[in-house]
Amino acid sequence: MNYNIAVIPGDGIGPEIIGEARKILDKVGAVYHHLFEYTEVLMGGISIDTYGVPLTDEALNTAKKSDSVLLGAVGGNVGNSKWYDVAPNLRPEAGLLAIRKGLNLFANIRPAYLYKELADACPLKKEIIGDGFDMIIMRELTGGLYFGDRYTKEVDGVMTAVDTLTYNENEIRRIAIKAFDIAMKRKKQVISVDKANVLDSSRLWRKVVEEVAQNYPEVKLSHMLVDNCAMQLVMNPGQFDVILTENMFGDILSDEASMITGSIGMLSSASMNESKFGMYEPSHGSAPDIAGKNIANPIATILSAAMMLRYSFDLDKEAAAVEAAVEQVLKEGYRTGDIYSDGFKKVSTTEMGDLIAERI
Amino acid sequence: MNYNIAVIPGDGIGPEIIGEARKILDKVGAVYHHLFEYTEVLMGGISIDTYGVPLTDEALNTAKKSDSVLLGAVGGNVGNSKWYDVAPNLRPEAGLLAIRKGLNLFANIRPAYLYKELADACPLKKEIIGDGFDMIIMRELTGGLYFGDRYTKEVDGVMTAVDTLTYNENEIRRIAIKAFDIAMKRKKQVISVDKANVLDSSRLWRKVVEEVAQNYPEVKLSHMLVDNCAMQLVMNPGQFDVILTENMFGDILSDEASMITGSIGMLSSASMNESKFGMYEPSHGSAPDIAGKNIANPIATILSAAMMLRYSFDLDKEAAAVEAAVEQVLKEGYRTGDIYSDGFKKVSTTEMGDLIAERI
Ligand SMILES: CC(C)[C@H](C(=O)O)[C@@H](O)C(=O)O
Ligand SMILES: CC(C)[C@H](C(=O)O)[C@@H](O)C(=O)O
Repeated sequence: MNYNIAVIPGDGIGPEIIGEARKILDKVGAVYHHLFEYTEVLMGGISIDTYGVPLTDEALNTAKKSDSVLLGAVGGNVGNSKWYDVAPNLRPEAGLLAIRKGLNLFANIRPAYLYKELADACPLKKEIIGDGFDMIIMRELTGGLYFGDRYTKEVDGVMTAVDTLTYNENEIRRIAIKAFDIAMKRKKQVISVDKANVLDSSRLWRKVVEEVAQNYPEVKLSHMLVDNCAMQLVMNPGQFDVILTENMFGDILSDEASMITGSIGMLSSASMNESKFGMYEPSHGSAPDIAGKNIANPIATILSAAMMLRYSFDLDKEAAAVEAAVEQVLKEGYRTGDIYSDGFKKVSTTEMGDLIAERI
Repeated sequence: MNYNIAVIPGDGIGPEIIGEARKILDKVGAVYHHLFEYTEVLMGGISIDTYGVPLTDEALNTAKKSDSVLLGAVGGNVGNSKWYDVAPNLRPEAGLLAIRKGLNLFANIRPAYLYKELADACPLKKEIIGDGFDMIIMRELTGGLYFGDRYTKEVDGVMTAVDTLTYNENEIRRIAIKAFDIAMKRKKQVISVDKANVLDSSRLWRKVVEEVAQNYPEVKLSHMLVDNCAMQLVMNPGQFDVILTENMFGDILSDEASMITGSIGMLSSASMNESKFGMYEPSHGSAPDIAGKNIANPIATILSAAMMLRYSFDLDKEAAAVEAAVEQVLKEGYRTGDIYSDGFKKVSTTEMGDLIAERI
C-alpha cells in the first residue's frame, strides 16, 4: 500500500535522526512491498528562520492531509539562541503546541521500560529495579494548563499572572478510554494520577475515569496522587503498567519515568487523535550541543516509526520486524555514544541506521 | 526564656512522633535553661471526629498566638476512612491547607540530603550519588493552583472543572528573597524551576526572580524547566543547592527529592511567614498503617523541632546539639524499622527518642 507521511525534521539533531528513520521505513517498504512517500514540513526554529513563525498554516495543513506525521525534535538552547528573544508564541516549542492542538492529538503515549541490555545505564539500584519495569504513560495532551486562558496584567498596581487549568468530562473520557484500551493489551492495570485532594479538575478526572472503568471490568484501576507518583517511580517502578494522567502532570512524570530507564535515547512516543492518525517522535529533545556531528542515537526515532507502522497503519508484522532489528543490533553489541560503555562497539548515527536496516 | 509552642499531634503516627519531639525539647530546656510550654491543638481527622471540621477557628487562633507550631501529620487512608466520604474542604488535609493560609506560611523549606550512614537505603546507584547531595527545596506554599478560584459546573450540558493558577509579583518576590537568603548561607546557588515555555505565571516568576537576584550578586541563579528538573533529580542530584519553585511543582519535586535520599523518615521541614514564625513538621505523612505500634521513626519530627529552635527562636547552639545527638545515635548503630538493616540495633519510637535525649 501507499502511505503519505508528513516528515518534520525540526531542529538540532532532528534532521539526522529523521534521516535514519526514513532509511528504516524505506527498507520496510522494499521488503514488505509498501510505498512510503514523504512530504517535508518545517516546524520549530527552522520554520522561524524561514517564515518568521514556528508553524505556518500551510505546514499544518500538509500535516493534516497526511496519513501520519513523523517528527524529529524542535527547539534550541534556551540560554543562547535568538529563537528565544521573542514572545513565547513565536518560539520553536510553540510550533509543537500548535500542531498538537491543530491535529487534535489529545493522547500522548510514552512507553518507559528498562532495556535488559542497557540496564547498567539505569540510575536506580538493582534492588529497586528488580525484574525490570515496563510502563506506558498515557498523557492528555490538548487540555489543562497548556491550553487554558492565560494573561498577565496589573491588578491594583501589582503585576499578576494567571493560567487556567480546565478539563471537561468529554476530554477526560476520551483519554481514559485510550488508556483502558491499551491496558487491555498489556497487564490490565491502570493507575490514574491526579491531585484530587486539592484540584476540582482532578476530582472530575477521578469521577470520569471511574465511570469509564465500569466498561473494563477486567482492568484493575487505582488512583495515585501526583506527589506520591513522583516518589513511587523512583522507589518501585515495577508496580506500574499504564499511568493515566493530565497534561502537566504527564509532562513531569513522563520525563521522570524516561530518565529512570537510563536510556532516554531509546524511547519512542506517539500522539494520537480519535482515529488512527498520529504524530510520532522520540521522547528526547533536539540536543543542539551534538547536532551535526553524526553521533546522536537514532533508535528512539526509529522505534517511533515502528509505533507508526503499528498504531496508524496496522502493520504489526512490519513494526515487529523493526523492533526485532533494534534488539538484534543491541545484542550484537553496537552502541551510539550515549549508551556506549567499555567492551562495546561504538557506532555513529548513520552506522546505527545502516545496521538496523540490514537486519530487516 | 519561655517559649509557647502550639503542638498539633494530628492523626496516624502523629501523636507518637510528637511525643518524642517534646521529649527532646524538654531535655533541651533542662540542659540550656529554657521553658517550652505546649498548647495542644486539634487538626485533621481528630478534629473532624471531635468538632466536625478539620480546623476550628479557635485552633487556628491558638496557633496564631503561639511562638511557633510543631506538627505531627494529618490524614488517613484515603481508600478506607470515613474522613474521605465528604466534600474536600471537610477532609483532614483541608486543615493543613487552612492553617498554611491562615498563618500566612508562604515559604516551605524542605531539605533533602543523603545521610552518609544511611546511603545504602538510597535508591540511586553509587555512580549517580557521587559525593552525596544536600539540597533545599524552597516551595511557595500559599499561592498557585492550591489557592486559586475553582469550580465545577455544567457548560452546554458538559461537566467542566476549572482551577486557577495565580501569582502576583509580591508573592513571587517574597519567596525568592527567602531562597536567596538561604542560598547565601549555603553554596550560593539557586535553581529556579518553572514551566516558562508554557505558563504566564512562570514567565512572571522568572522575571521577578531575576530582579531579586540583582540584590544577590554572589549567588549564581539559573532556571530549569520542571520536566527537566524531575529528570535531573534522578540523574544528578549533586548539582542542586537551593531549588526555588511554585506550590504545585514544589509539591511534586520535593517528594521526589526526599525519596531519592532513601530516608524520608529523617527529613524535616519548615513553613515560615515574613517574620520568624514557623510551622515545623516531618516531610513524611501520617502512616496510618503503622500507627500506635511504637515503631515509627521520630527523627524527622525531632529534626523539625531542631529547625524550630534555629529558625524561630535563634537557638543555634541548642539546634546543633539536637542534630549532633541524632548523628551520634545513628553512628552508634541504632535504627528504627524503616531504616534498619542487618547488623544494626533495632529500636522502637520511644527508645529512639530516649537515646537521642540522653545524648543532649
Ligand atoms: C517543549 C514543551 C512545550 C513540551 C511540553 O511541555 O509538552 C515538552 O516538554 C514535551 O514534553 O513534549
Ligand atoms: C496533603 C496535601 C494537601 C499536601 C500538599 O499537597 O501540599 C502534602 O502533599 C504536602 O506536600 O504537604
